[in-house]
Amino acid sequence: MHTVEVCFTPEDYHLYKKDNQAVVVIDVLRATSVICSALYHGVSKVIPVETLEDAEKYLDKGYLVAGERNGEKVKSFALGNSPLAFVSGEYHGHELVISTTNGTRAINTAMDAEQLLIGSLLNAQSIINHLLIQEMDVLLLCSGWKGKTNLEDSICAGYIAQQLKESKRFESEEDSTLISINLFESAQTNPYSFLKGSSHRRRLLKLGLAKDIKFCLKANALDIVPYYSSGIICKL
Amino acid sequence: MHTVEVCFTPEDYHLYKKDNQAVVVIDVLRATSVICSALYHGVSKVIPVETLEDAEKYLDKGYLVAGERNGEKVKSFALGNSPLAFVSGEYHGHELVISTTNGTRAINTAMDAEQLLIGSLLNAQSIINHLLIQEMDVLLLCSGWKGKTNLEDSICAGYIAQQLKESKRFESEEDSTLISINLFESAQTNPYSFLKGSSHRRRLLKLGLAKDIKFCLKANALDIVPYYSSGIICKL
Repeated sequence: MHTVEVCFTPEDYHLYKKDNQAVVVIDVLRATSVICSALYHGVSKVIPVETLEDAEKYLDKGYLVAGERNGEKVKSFALGNSPLAFVSGEYHGHELVISTTNGTRAINTAMDAEQLLIGSLLNAQSIINHLLIQEMDVLLLCSGWKGKTNLEDSICAGYIAQQLKESKRFESEEDSTLISINLFESAQTNPYSFLKGSSHRRRLLKLGLAKDIKFCLKANALDIVPYYSSGIICKL
Repeated sequence: MHTVEVCFTPEDYHLYKKDNQAVVVIDVLRATSVICSALYHGVSKVIPVETLEDAEKYLDKGYLVAGERNGEKVKSFALGNSPLAFVSGEYHGHELVISTTNGTRAINTAMDAEQLLIGSLLNAQSIINHLLIQEMDVLLLCSGWKGKTNLEDSICAGYIAQQLKESKRFESEEDSTLISINLFESAQTNPYSFLKGSSHRRRLLKLGLAKDIKFCLKANALDIVPYYSSGIICKL
């Protein structure tokens, strides 16, 4: 029997990490949804970088660069942080550099994990299927918002945790996992309406990003398992 | 309009603290329940200390000292961490020194707050009544377990947050507050059964502390508002 646990924010990762652990980084709105969409729609690899300075170095070298701060596109970059930008297949074969407020930070926080996967509602089922055939403890690491807990990542983590526990191959010890599962079960009937209270949803709506939100909340729409290794995210 | 927010663990306090804020430290199982019970049953003041070394210095000076680590009484101290120890009135007029795994740490973390109150399920209504007549933003600071989120503190915080929001004199911005309120509403019908999954409840049950747990979960049993000032907790 392995464990599946939920960590609400990268701030607390040091308390939950352990050896031989598969860590799933979740940033539903929007970094991990963007990474899933990009790789699903043909981008060859994604390079997550934490600072805008690092992203600009790639820009100077001619890379395709995407980035946002506080939900808004970084002006000098080709792309912001929209999963819809990749749907047409326009960036097929490109290498993408991405830097966001929370998601890329969470990825870098957990880069020492034995296995580091990129999760979102879009690819939740694919992540679950993958984890069910590993022999590893699982940590679902929510990206949150500037270190604080957020609603949509916690719900997504609750969904994955619930499914893994129902398989009877995983158990959990931490109360954060119980809280996430309870939250998912409350939201299950209508996640879109449940998320009305979400602080980040309000933030994105103000920026006119309703279509992005709707896309990111489509559970299990993309069959893809992105994984991180030595600074690069590829699909499995 | 003032804000009421929930912080799941002292680890994240630095992200939620602000000026002119009333902070309510919550450690349902058991430190803040013990402090409420002690002061309600006649103890004149409580001195919370973080380390066992500090507590031992008070012991040497002849103080009544209570303390636990990992749920178990510290052998050399007169008392452990049971709220029931004070019910008979035996310690009326005494000054109590207390050191626990999580609660006293949370109190010390927030000692710079404009107003620092001690909350538990036992005195939740008294805390709510007090906060309703303050003109201050409120932060409900859960003590958690060694830095991690726990169930019972999050539920208690959700109860207080829900009541304050229902008064229409408070609003919240943070998703952690929404999550706590949702959790409380799920637990409301039967908190005792809901808490069955709680990791700390299991820990205490193993130590034979079922009576303590039952006492700590009695909502609104004690009409008392303990507050911290300059290293000492007294009743208002």
